[in-house]
Parts: sequence; C-alpha cells; structure tokens
Amino acid sequence: MNDSNRDIEALIDMMARLPGLGPRSARRAVLHMIKKRGLLLGPLAEAMQRVADTARECVNCGNIGTGDLCEICANNARANGQICVVEDVADLWAMERGKAFKGRYHVLGGTLSALDAVGPDDLRIPRLLDRLPGEDVKEVILALNATVDGQTTAHYIADQLGDSVTVTSLAQGVPIGGELDYLDDGTISAALRSRRTF
Amino acid sequence: MNDSNRDIEALIDMMARLPGLGPRSARRAVLHMIKKRGLLLGPLAEAMQRVADTARECVNCGNIGTGDLCEICANNARANGQICVVEDVADLWAMERGKAFKGRYHVLGGTLSALDAVGPDDLRIPRLLDRLPGEDVKEVILALNATVDGQTTAHYIADQLGDSVTVTSLAQGVPIGGELDYLDDGTISAALRSRRTF
Repeated sequence: MNDSNRDIEALIDMMARLPGLGPRSARRAVLHMIKKRGLLLGPLAEAMQRVADTARECVNCGNIGTGDLCEICANNARANGQICVVEDVADLWAMERGKAFKGRYHVLGGTLSALDAVGPDDLRIPRLLDRLPGEDVKEVILALNATVDGQTTAHYIADQLGDSVTVTSLAQGVPIGGELDYLDDGTISAALRSRRTF
Repeated sequence: MNDSNRDIEALIDMMARLPGLGPRSARRAVLHMIKKRGLLLGPLAEAMQRVADTARECVNCGNIGTGDLCEICANNARANGQICVVEDVADLWAMERGKAFKGRYHVLGGTLSALDAVGPDDLRIPRLLDRLPGEDVKEVILALNATVDGQTTAHYIADQLGDSVTVTSLAQGVPIGGELDYLDDGTISAALRSRRTF
C-alpha cells in the first residue's frame, strides 16, 4: 500500500480488531467500502458516530440503550415480577428475538471464572440482589449459557438468592429441528431425564 | 432488540452488508464496538469518515489514493517503463506487499466476462492503451488471476497491445512452501513445462 494511504491503513488495522475479522478480511471489507463509499462508507461512519455518541449501559440492568434506563427498564408493562439473568447483551437480544419473555433482564457482564480471576464483584451480581425488593421480584430465571462457567455462575447466584424468590433456569433438551444423531450424549440424557408426558 | 435502539439496528444492518460479515457476526462486532466505544467505536467512525472524505480513484491507473494521481503515479521514480496490469486494487496491494515490482500499475476494475456482460469498455482497457505512448512504456506485465476470466482478459489485452510493447505474464509454478501432493495437476504440469536449470 502507498505511504500516503495512512488513513486507509489505519482503518484496516481498526477493522481487523473486530471479532470475526482478521487482517485479510478487514482489507477486503475496507476495499469494498471504498468502492461503495457514497452508499456504504459515509453512512456507516455516520451510523457509528451516532451510536458512539448515544449508546450507554442501563444503570439498572446493564442492557445497552440510549438513556440512563434502557427501553425495557423504562417500560412499566415489563415489571411483571420476573427477572431473566443473562451473561451478555447478545444473550438478551437472543431472548428478545424469541419473543417469549415479557419481564425484565439483568445482564451480568460475564461469568464467574477462577481461571480469569472474575469474582462476584466483577459481575453485576450485587446489583441483582439490590433489585429484588425494589422491583417486587417473584421469580429469577437463570438464562446462562450451558457451559461450565455459565452453570457455575448460575449455582452461585441461586445460592445467593436463597429462598427469597423462586429461582428457575431454562430447560435443557433437544433443540427444535435437532436430529438426535447429531446431538451430544449429555444433551440426550438431559432431554431423557426431563421427559414429559405427550 | 429494543425499539429505541434503531441506531444500533441500523449500524448492524450496514455492517452485515460488508463482505465476510453476516447478520450474526455483524451483531457480534457491533456489540464488541459498543463495549469498547471509547477505544474503538468513536475512532473507527472518525477513520471511516476521513477515508470517505479523502479516498478517490487515481485518474491514471485506477488505484485508490487521496489525490487525482495516486502515490505511485505521482512518483517519477516508478516511471521505469513497466506497467503491471491487475484486476483489482486488492491485487495491486498484494503486489506491493511482495516489494518486487518497481514500476507502475494499471487497475482494470474487473475481468472480461461473457456471463456478466462485462466488455472491454466496462474495464479500464482503453485507458491502458492511451498510457503506453505518454509514459514511454517498454513492458506490460499481465498479473491477472489464474482463473478462466482472468486468462481470457490477459489474452484479449495481449492481442490489443500487439507488437508495440513487450507483453509478459507472471510465472506459473509451485508456490513457495507448497507441497506437490497438495497441488492440482494443472499447476504441476505448468511447473514442469516451465522448468529451469538448477
């Protein structure tokens, strides 16, 4: 690349730091953007600037929104006494796409991890305990990933909550459209243990 | 996702249009950027805006630069009588990374393609012919991809150039570090045909 194209090089370096992109795909993406700079590069830069200016974490639940409170925490219709605890904003969005949950969320911001030295105070766990009386919570649904760290975190939170509220977790079983032959043994035995009358 | 997060949704939609990213990886990239918005999102937006404002095609060769002439065309030291013809700016960058070529380039902007109805006038082929006398060109190196369309285009250009200049093309053979067992038959026979004394 030419010496004068420092701006383009800087852009490629930054794009390469995004998850899912490496140096080569960042280069390809930047070239594509430059070719369509009227349609893509300018509007994308503006969209990013807008999000950079407005996006912030909800002080209550950790979701991303544009005000102190996110859309969900600001909406009284969603104060139904249920809080769904998720690891990450991406998981919150996944739950919302499911359109099945009508309550509020609590985003932990990660999982407990001995290896990475992540303790309860590094996550939004104390804040979760604070929310229970104020929002009159009846049920905490632990929607954490079915990984070792996710389940460790779920057990820790369940311990902390004690008998003050009902604590539930997502069902484990065969995913919709899943073929038994392609599922791991753990999922099949979990689905068998939790079998239900037809 | 919340209704108020239209800006974030718009950003995800735009990112998903980049090559190499789909809706899911765009979402992941945007969340990552929002988490590091001070370090990544703001600077990335600025870098994009800078490139959107300054990047343009060189009127001479089709490379991307910041002025009417790109860095290479503006540099008299590179007027060595050689022009390397490439399909795309990405290929020009790849050649420059090789640091072996000291002349100028000519970016066609694609290849001839009967299927996609791309003819000579849709590429920068007439402009290439115009450049030959003015830049006192002695050799045109066809560095087109070794695909059917790339080689068709190379033959067409070689025909157009006729005997006015020396026309060469990149050698075909075993790539550095390549293992014969993993190479296709065509490459092996090309390498054998072009064998050289050791």
